[in-house]
Amino acid sequence: MAAPFPFDDFRDLVNLLPDPETAAVEAFWARDAQLTKIPGSLGKLEEIGAWLAAATGKRPPKVEKPLVAVFAANHGLAAKGVSAFPAEVTKQMVANYAAGGAAINQICMVSDIGLKVFELALDHPTPDVSVADAFDGPGCAATMAFGMEALANGTDLLCLGEMGIGNTAIASAIFLALFGGTAEEWVGPGTGVEGAALANKVEVVREVVARIAGEKDPFEILRRIGGREIAAMVGAIIAARHQKVPVVVDGFVTTAAAAIVFALNPKAIDHCLFAHVSAEPAHRKALATMGKTALLDLGMRLGEGTGAAIAASIVRAAAATHAGMATFAEAGVSNKD
Amino acid sequence: MAAPFPFDDFRDLVNLLPDPETAAVEAFWARDAQLTKIPGSLGKLEEIGAWLAAATGKRPPKVEKPLVAVFAANHGLAAKGVSAFPAEVTKQMVANYAAGGAAINQICMVSDIGLKVFELALDHPTPDVSVADAFDGPGCAATMAFGMEALANGTDLLCLGEMGIGNTAIASAIFLALFGGTAEEWVGPGTGVEGAALANKVEVVREVVARIAGEKDPFEILRRIGGREIAAMVGAIIAARHQKVPVVVDGFVTTAAAAIVFALNPKAIDHCLFAHVSAEPAHRKALATMGKTALLDLGMRLGEGTGAAIAASIVRAAAATHAGMATFAEAGVSNKD
Repeated sequence: MAAPFPFDDFRDLVNLLPDPETAAVEAFWARDAQLTKIPGSLGKLEEIGAWLAAATGKRPPKVEKPLVAVFAANHGLAAKGVSAFPAEVTKQMVANYAAGGAAINQICMVSDIGLKVFELALDHPTPDVSVADAFDGPGCAATMAFGMEALANGTDLLCLGEMGIGNTAIASAIFLALFGGTAEEWVGPGTGVEGAALANKVEVVREVVARIAGEKDPFEILRRIGGREIAAMVGAIIAARHQKVPVVVDGFVTTAAAAIVFALNPKAIDHCLFAHVSAEPAHRKALATMGKTALLDLGMRLGEGTGAAIAASIVRAAAATHAGMATFAEAGVSNKD
Repeated sequence: MAAPFPFDDFRDLVNLLPDPETAAVEAFWARDAQLTKIPGSLGKLEEIGAWLAAATGKRPPKVEKPLVAVFAANHGLAAKGVSAFPAEVTKQMVANYAAGGAAINQICMVSDIGLKVFELALDHPTPDVSVADAFDGPGCAATMAFGMEALANGTDLLCLGEMGIGNTAIASAIFLALFGGTAEEWVGPGTGVEGAALANKVEVVREVVARIAGEKDPFEILRRIGGREIAAMVGAIIAARHQKVPVVVDGFVTTAAAAIVFALNPKAIDHCLFAHVSAEPAHRKALATMGKTALLDLGMRLGEGTGAAIAASIVRAAAATHAGMATFAEAGVSNKD
């Protein structure tokens, strides 16, 4: 077990949350009722608007500088055959992001969303976590702190995504360690493993979690399973809460980061919107376990923040309708008798 | 009964469809398989891309000039108390669109989608269709032809929306006349009628359809129930098919226009994507009756093309990922073994 020291500051951050922005939420609904539409007729867009008000305290909330932050890392566990792709693909895909050739590049470009890729020591995979801890305490804490850098350039909507061959196995192990159940329930095809390879993935995830049996502290579960991208996203989620930046969570692996924070304090992810239900089967279970519902269900399972970026356009539309629509009085439109 | 003459040309257009673009669809999937992602991992975005290829024949399909066309009309039936809002709101909302104050203005602005509003003789509502036909034959045909103008400026993705106090009652009557069932099954709150007013709306819709009992020709159902915005959207949908422009259908009322075309020839709306399930309860039933599924379920029920505009961003992302992503070979990414 690592010394408790490195996580104390993060524990404080997760537990000493900013006060709820109830006045901004009330102001949101008061304005919403005056806009030239039937109350409730924008459905989830209105709920998203109120969520933005709660997360930011702004009246009206605005989304003017959305950013997709993609965290990329490598995993020693990939050597255990848990992915259909070789580990070098992580670095190759990072090069693809830099060249503008990946799905997330296209979605960000047509949606006018910023994109920043954070490489996390790709030449230094975390160890095979079926036999060793992913980090020592200071290393894990430093990676969380690094993740906070995603906020450095002043985004007002942080969309989290990831890339890392082997990381659906890591995410499955985190869910199993946090929420219990069986390895079978949490493991899915990821990039496309099936048959004997899928059975192997289940067994590897079981071994990872068996090694840390009894571990209940979410920070320790993170430290012992990894990976770097998940630790960085945990840091980003925590920092965003304190900087009043709303977060859009992508799919299965990104949700594992949110689940770490949730397990520490469920209220600490109230500023997180779950973009979509991934086609990775256990994502639905992870969301249900946390009592969360996702905005979209598009059968996506690519990662890279692609689902979050799609959802970000809807979040931006929610903010724009609320801020920009005329009131009945301004437009001279007769209201319901 | 009107003379059959005015609809013959439209009947030809609905029945003599362009050949399926099977080669473009095959080309789509062949390219899709080479892109730097797991096959299938973009889920519905891939299906949308293939649908764009089928509708346009383009390799790759592109969405560069999306347009929301909002058709606005008035209905004599509004005098029967079928809406929670007075009829003058149609014209007031058209002024609101012109001033940039409506929800659809904001969504188009942040989504970089064009917006064009077509006013359809707002000072001349179609008659109370519980006692008289909405149009004579030439009038209905002329309105359909006018709707074709939505394509005049060369859009490559036509999103249809509407505004018209009383038009959810009109749409309910169309669905009832086309698909059978009871008035209760097809009538909902629209802009917010409830209680006795909702019971009245049900009764009025029943009267409208009873007046044309036995009428089975979808063009005649359109001519006798209306309204102008629905006839114009029917024309737009038919013209778009022949001009190989894909169409995004918005909610309950817009779907009534698509249902007219569907009832004439189910294949004639293969170029239509249903954007979302409206919170107007019978929309789900209308989609199910046609065997269609909608892309989104966001609890929206505003009309104006708002749901279609939200969906258009996803359609554009589908086109952009397909056209812009690098292949495994181009990016030097190792493919699955």
